[in-house]
Amino acid sequence: MEQINRLLMQMEFIREIDKLKYIQRKTKLFNSDRHENDAEHSWHLAMMVMVLAEYANEPVNVLRVLKMVLIHDIVEIDAGDIFLYDTVQNHTNTDAELVAAQRIFGLLPEEQCKDFTELWMEFEEGESADAKFAKVIDRLEPVLQNISNNGGTWTEYNVSFEKVFQTLDKMKISSSVLYAHVEEIIATFREGQNV
Amino acid sequence: MEQINRLLMQMEFIREIDKLKYIQRKTKLFNSDRHENDAEHSWHLAMMVMVLAEYANEPVNVLRVLKMVLIHDIVEIDAGDIFLYDTVQNHTNTDAELVAAQRIFGLLPEEQCKDFTELWMEFEEGESADAKFAKVIDRLEPVLQNISNNGGTWTEYNVSFEKVFQTLDKMKISSSVLYAHVEEIIATFREGQNV
Repeated sequence: MEQINRLLMQMEFIREIDKLKYIQRKTKLFNSDRHENDAEHSWHLAMMVMVLAEYANEPVNVLRVLKMVLIHDIVEIDAGDIFLYDTVQNHTNTDAELVAAQRIFGLLPEEQCKDFTELWMEFEEGESADAKFAKVIDRLEPVLQNISNNGGTWTEYNVSFEKVFQTLDKMKISSSVLYAHVEEIIATFREGQNV
Repeated sequence: MEQINRLLMQMEFIREIDKLKYIQRKTKLFNSDRHENDAEHSWHLAMMVMVLAEYANEPVNVLRVLKMVLIHDIVEIDAGDIFLYDTVQNHTNTDAELVAAQRIFGLLPEEQCKDFTELWMEFEEGESADAKFAKVIDRLEPVLQNISNNGGTWTEYNVSFEKVFQTLDKMKISSSVLYAHVEEIIATFREGQNV
């Protein structure tokens, strides 16, 4: 009986998170006009973690980083996507996100709720080696997308390269290789743009 | 120099797999008319693995199962989605999928290509405990979606419940708990339909 209740709670969570597929990001797919949604984004980050984990400056636990990127945006089902370069709202740790985490992870059995909430908070805080690398990957994808889209959200929302590099600042200490790559591709992009 | 080439290969792979977001499945999102794409599907399976791994009859390595479900459909970028209940084409192990795996995983550095190819083949063969459980999850998602959509692809393509249970057959030996759940929700659905 207890196992059945447990499974029903888990199934309810599995149905609920389907809504992540409707949360549109500001960024668009590569070479595309179609906006990316949070589920696609989370899958792509997971793939990038699998491929790029070797470039973390501190060793990371790939399983934990994968779990982090897979769940990191689930709170946006209730709280909505906040634009990385938003000048009014803070990108992370909003009250709305905390309430969302309690409601959505709260659908799960107690110890799974606790695991997911702690993992999500660790990601948000960005202090552990795993969280820092997860954030590197979360920052990297929109850079690649924007470059493929002739500036993408940088151009569309008039984001200065100073501001772009501010959001990439922590990448420098978490992955020197990926930071160097990003610096180089942005420089090449700016040369092409003559800015 | 070698590290730069390696990274450029990895970045090329990361850009290429963006195309998975355009591969439409026959099944639709929960309670929805919108078709699911392969990237969303792969993310959802990964979440289900995290939540449901405890129901594998044989112990599984969660990291390996996660990797399997994350990459399992990448070959469809070239080979296209083959409908689970297709009566002409075989669902798995088509020649087109093998050629696709060689091309797409072949974008990666050699040892990563080898890892991904082996993992994908292990999934396709479905013999190991990890692959069997990955396949349980791959079968489970469309069942939940079809029930939420008043029969979904079962109704749309006139798939008999005998055929549905054929595709679920291996779930029985790989996860008795999930199979029992699926049997029960399909029975309840059929009662509601009076079929």
